[in-house]
Amino acid sequence: MSEISSLGEFGLIDHLTKDIKIVNASTLKGVGDDAAVLQYGPDSKTLITTDLLLENVHFDLTYVPLRHLGYKSAVVNFSDIYAMNGTPRQITVSLGISSRFTLEHIEELYAGIRLACEHYGVDLVGGDTSASHQGLVISITCLGEAPEDKIVYRNGAQHNDLVCVSGNLGAAYMGLQLLEREKVASAGMKDFQPDFQGREYILERQLKPEARRDVIENLAKAGIKPTAMMDVSDGLSSELIHICSQSNVGCRIYEDRIPIDYQTAVMAEEINMNLVTAALNGGEDYELLFTIPLAAYDAIARVPDVKVIGKIVPASEGCAMITRDNTEITLRAQGWNPLKGDSQQ
Amino acid sequence: MSEISSLGEFGLIDHLTKDIKIVNASTLKGVGDDAAVLQYGPDSKTLITTDLLLENVHFDLTYVPLRHLGYKSAVVNFSDIYAMNGTPRQITVSLGISSRFTLEHIEELYAGIRLACEHYGVDLVGGDTSASHQGLVISITCLGEAPEDKIVYRNGAQHNDLVCVSGNLGAAYMGLQLLEREKVASAGMKDFQPDFQGREYILERQLKPEARRDVIENLAKAGIKPTAMMDVSDGLSSELIHICSQSNVGCRIYEDRIPIDYQTAVMAEEINMNLVTAALNGGEDYELLFTIPLAAYDAIARVPDVKVIGKIVPASEGCAMITRDNTEITLRAQGWNPLKGDSQQ
Repeated sequence: MSEISSLGEFGLIDHLTKDIKIVNASTLKGVGDDAAVLQYGPDSKTLITTDLLLENVHFDLTYVPLRHLGYKSAVVNFSDIYAMNGTPRQITVSLGISSRFTLEHIEELYAGIRLACEHYGVDLVGGDTSASHQGLVISITCLGEAPEDKIVYRNGAQHNDLVCVSGNLGAAYMGLQLLEREKVASAGMKDFQPDFQGREYILERQLKPEARRDVIENLAKAGIKPTAMMDVSDGLSSELIHICSQSNVGCRIYEDRIPIDYQTAVMAEEINMNLVTAALNGGEDYELLFTIPLAAYDAIARVPDVKVIGKIVPASEGCAMITRDNTEITLRAQGWNPLKGDSQQ
Repeated sequence: MSEISSLGEFGLIDHLTKDIKIVNASTLKGVGDDAAVLQYGPDSKTLITTDLLLENVHFDLTYVPLRHLGYKSAVVNFSDIYAMNGTPRQITVSLGISSRFTLEHIEELYAGIRLACEHYGVDLVGGDTSASHQGLVISITCLGEAPEDKIVYRNGAQHNDLVCVSGNLGAAYMGLQLLEREKVASAGMKDFQPDFQGREYILERQLKPEARRDVIENLAKAGIKPTAMMDVSDGLSSELIHICSQSNVGCRIYEDRIPIDYQTAVMAEEINMNLVTAALNGGEDYELLFTIPLAAYDAIARVPDVKVIGKIVPASEGCAMITRDNTEITLRAQGWNPLKGDSQQ
């Protein structure tokens, strides 16, 4: 008997799908990236991605409002489509609903999903609802499209490329720590009022993340097409290793270049957690991690909210971070245990 | 507070999606049929459908082998695409897996999914795996395609059309009754050997249903395009009412024309269940229910395994069955309680 958890998610998906043969001409790219790529027309490609969210694995309704949960469930799928340099177009939503939920609850959830759809210009085109004996189950599939020459895979990073990341890292993870702390503090207390003042940003990063459509649009305006790209859902370290292994390259990133918000730093200090560990391995940032040709160095400097954090090196040099005191630390895919809460194609 | 179950599945979906606005030109048809219809190319349309299957709601692993479960999970999605007169092309598979499952278990499940994909010429293009605290969760989304002029919706039935159904009805439901009976009989017994001799057909209809690709192909060969079509997953009665209400018509079907297999009849008698009730309301037949113009009467007689069971009448006459003794019985959507085990877009 083999333990599933010993494989990790990528390992499990690889294992289960490694010799699947593609039989349809319309399937250009199947399992193995943020989204599959399909060909239904001559000019643009169809992208598809899917996420399964389970109560008490991916979300805790003790502190996550249903409207926020709906919003986030949709946005994490859009993020996968943007991470292909595509545009999300349609989603389907399947729900498993246990008897403790009322119609008003499900309306709240849907309100969040619909708000996300409106905000990102996506159509909700179908779904499925079912009874569940065990809490809330949310499964969302998103279709998107992109012109063929615009699609960015995970395997295109080249030696000497620059490694870039949008926004900042670790904030969603620190938001989660804050919520967990207040949950413990409030246990058994009625009308407990948690104090979130001055921490609104990390809370919002956890409860209502946004997909980086703006970054995709700004890169296009700047004439930059990334050579490889992923969204950061499992932590920077894990995603970097994934891009490098898919592209058969290595990387060097610099600790002092990793973008971290002030509130993230304050919270990490408060709970005695190493800040860089949080930024490297905290999940659910939904920022974009991508590589660009060295020649785009000047152009990327003019793209708002994007930072160059390192460079691509030959595979033989491995994946490492250079610390502030110039030590080289090998990156490890600690991330989230994929079979303990990850959701990504 | 409103009870979700009081709405039923179609009611809930209607309620939640009734004023959703379509914003993308590529979305031709959203919620409300077996699959959504998308436009990604000039010549053919993209279809998408999704199903969520939860342990102990949709399947009982006491008597359902995982390989069969995988096969069935895929096939029920293909059935929705065929029910649009389309061809399934790609699926994504998301799994929630609790710790009692080993890798071998999940391989078995995947083997069944892959067998179904091979058999129906469908590509598995992505998915998601996650831990589950609550048993096995399976969410499958299927994409398909069809030329625009071939797509068949649920709302096209016209007065005087013929009502047709493929195969036979009630067998899967009787297979389920048999399995449930043997489960009760075997409770607490080690090495219990259930006797399924002479009942292989109803078992197979429950455990390893097929989608009616053959019927779709034969209709095309015969030059017949249905005016409305659905697959029978909730029972004939429920689906007929749905087609009639969507098409704003009524229907008359004839008891003596409803196709029922011999094993279904034997089992119904053994458990003292009214045979016609089983055929009208038993779920999971995955046969095709469709309407055709009266002019296709001669042509349909030459299509194998399809039976004309009635006709379409004006909406004012309602939906009814004419019994063998010439009594008119109003059809009711008893089917499966959608929030107790249905899965359909």
